Amino acid sequence: MSHSQSPRAASHEAWMSAQLLRVEQALSDWVAPNSPLNSSASGDLAPVLSQAMRYAVLDGGKRLRPLLVLAAVEAVAATDEKSTQAALRAACAVELIHAYSLVHDDMPCMDNDILRRGKPTVHVKFGEAQALLAGDALQALAFELLTPSPDVVDTAVQATLCRILALSAGCHGMAGGQAIDLASVGKLLTIDELRTMHRLKTGALLQASVMMGAACGKATSAVNLALREYGAAIGLAFQVVDDVLDVTIDTATLGKTAGKDAEQDKPTFVSLLGLDASKAYADKLLQQALAALEQTGLNNTQGLESLAYMVVNRVT
Amino acid sequence: MSHSQSPRAASHEAWMSAQLLRVEQALSDWVAPNSPLNSSASGDLAPVLSQAMRYAVLDGGKRLRPLLVLAAVEAVAATDEKSTQAALRAACAVELIHAYSLVHDDMPCMDNDILRRGKPTVHVKFGEAQALLAGDALQALAFELLTPSPDVVDTAVQATLCRILALSAGCHGMAGGQAIDLASVGKLLTIDELRTMHRLKTGALLQASVMMGAACGKATSAVNLALREYGAAIGLAFQVVDDVLDVTIDTATLGKTAGKDAEQDKPTFVSLLGLDASKAYADKLLQQALAALEQTGLNNTQGLESLAYMVVNRVT
Repeated sequence: MSHSQSPRAASHEAWMSAQLLRVEQALSDWVAPNSPLNSSASGDLAPVLSQAMRYAVLDGGKRLRPLLVLAAVEAVAATDEKSTQAALRAACAVELIHAYSLVHDDMPCMDNDILRRGKPTVHVKFGEAQALLAGDALQALAFELLTPSPDVVDTAVQATLCRILALSAGCHGMAGGQAIDLASVGKLLTIDELRTMHRLKTGALLQASVMMGAACGKATSAVNLALREYGAAIGLAFQVVDDVLDVTIDTATLGKTAGKDAEQDKPTFVSLLGLDASKAYADKLLQQALAALEQTGLNNTQGLESLAYMVVNRVT
Repeated sequence: MSHSQSPRAASHEAWMSAQLLRVEQALSDWVAPNSPLNSSASGDLAPVLSQAMRYAVLDGGKRLRPLLVLAAVEAVAATDEKSTQAALRAACAVELIHAYSLVHDDMPCMDNDILRRGKPTVHVKFGEAQALLAGDALQALAFELLTPSPDVVDTAVQATLCRILALSAGCHGMAGGQAIDLASVGKLLTIDELRTMHRLKTGALLQASVMMGAACGKATSAVNLALREYGAAIGLAFQVVDDVLDVTIDTATLGKTAGKDAEQDKPTFVSLLGLDASKAYADKLLQQALAALEQTGLNNTQGLESLAYMVVNRVT
């Protein structure tokens, strides 16, 4: 991509590094902490499952979804302790859903991929059965993280976060999009059908990340609507860029197998629009996302702005 | 089994039939209602996924877990509209978790079973990839059902129900038990290890059903403790009876492949204790469950009592 950097990107780098540290620490604390792979391990009834869960989640990933949650909660200026705790839990929960979807998506009956984030995929490392269970357990853990004691997070916020996450992960969201994806192999989709598929498959969870962050504070419905538009735009942009990277970047840089879309005869934005038009489309979506942020009228949208640029400018 | 019927079983049959009707209707209304398999179908973006989800859930199953939820909410005498709605949603949610676990458990990388409830398993009917996704989507749908508008169910109840369900389904519950089960094939387990495995694999969700029902009302901690003991006893009894049925009942009656435990060299209560001692153990657990119900001091425990007898006396 050749899009300019966010004018405020540099000043926001420190914020992003700090948030990433928080997220990595929280994930390490909350995902099967008694695993033998963790040095502080004590008893663990199902050590292989715990190892597989930690392997699937830790030490890798851009953490885009957690960053979106945390940038959104910053945008709605929710700074009290309960909101902060809710946001960190939401950030981790959405990453667990993302991680489980990758584990299942990589399995032989789905994409049959052996490389993810530069490492062997979970089923290659731990076997298919444990990979299946690790994915299942990660989804359950996401909802466990969202429902701590009411002293930690208000129950009204817990319920809202669970609802947003469940809707975005299920048959009207991510899983539904994956099912359409499966059914579309070898078929000619229209650009509208392709957009719908990706709105569900990738977009729903990215948008949910933004909305979960907003739900940790108290946003007006106008702000929520604008943030929803922002989330939709970057959600779709993410997939357009993914399709571009699949044909322009080599496997080693990408950390996962490149060129798989064409090999599997999957419809992509590049196959439907061509490479240049796909890049231009990603840029248009970036502008839509930035315009939606303007619409919120909020002052603290630097994080969301930087992340929009990051989604479009990324090279892995 | 040769255990006597519950003295109040007959009078409770009408209650049970009525509850089953409610559950079947609610599941049909809530599980992918736009599927082409449903006569009232309208648009559906991922028709195969919806069909697979409905196939996995509807038209089959004893609905033991939903009945436990509804019997428990009756025991704690929560009869207002919000509690009733919460209980019905909890009943369906726990059944969706159970159904998804069967779909994934039957897959070739797990138990590789082709028959369930007398029908081809989901992956045989719809392919492995759609089966994997259908299971994933059913888990998400469970949490979606538990988190409707606050006008329908109080958010404090929503949060508690999500937490109980997530804990019982994840690595410290069902998924953890399945992972131990996988690791135990061909190994000699002690009776304590076998009990621990089944407490997680089957017991956690059965116990959670009881506790979710109780959470829809307002039970004292003493009542909760006694109900937890009841749930633990019938949870374990269920598995002991399962092991007995696996060697005593033929495939056609069972509706799933019989004799698989021995064939797969899995440790069972029968292989460790012998057939007669296993039957006696099931009876002892029934008595423990009934004693725990006495401990609650509640008047309306007829449903839970009948279900305890049903768990131990069942022949499929």
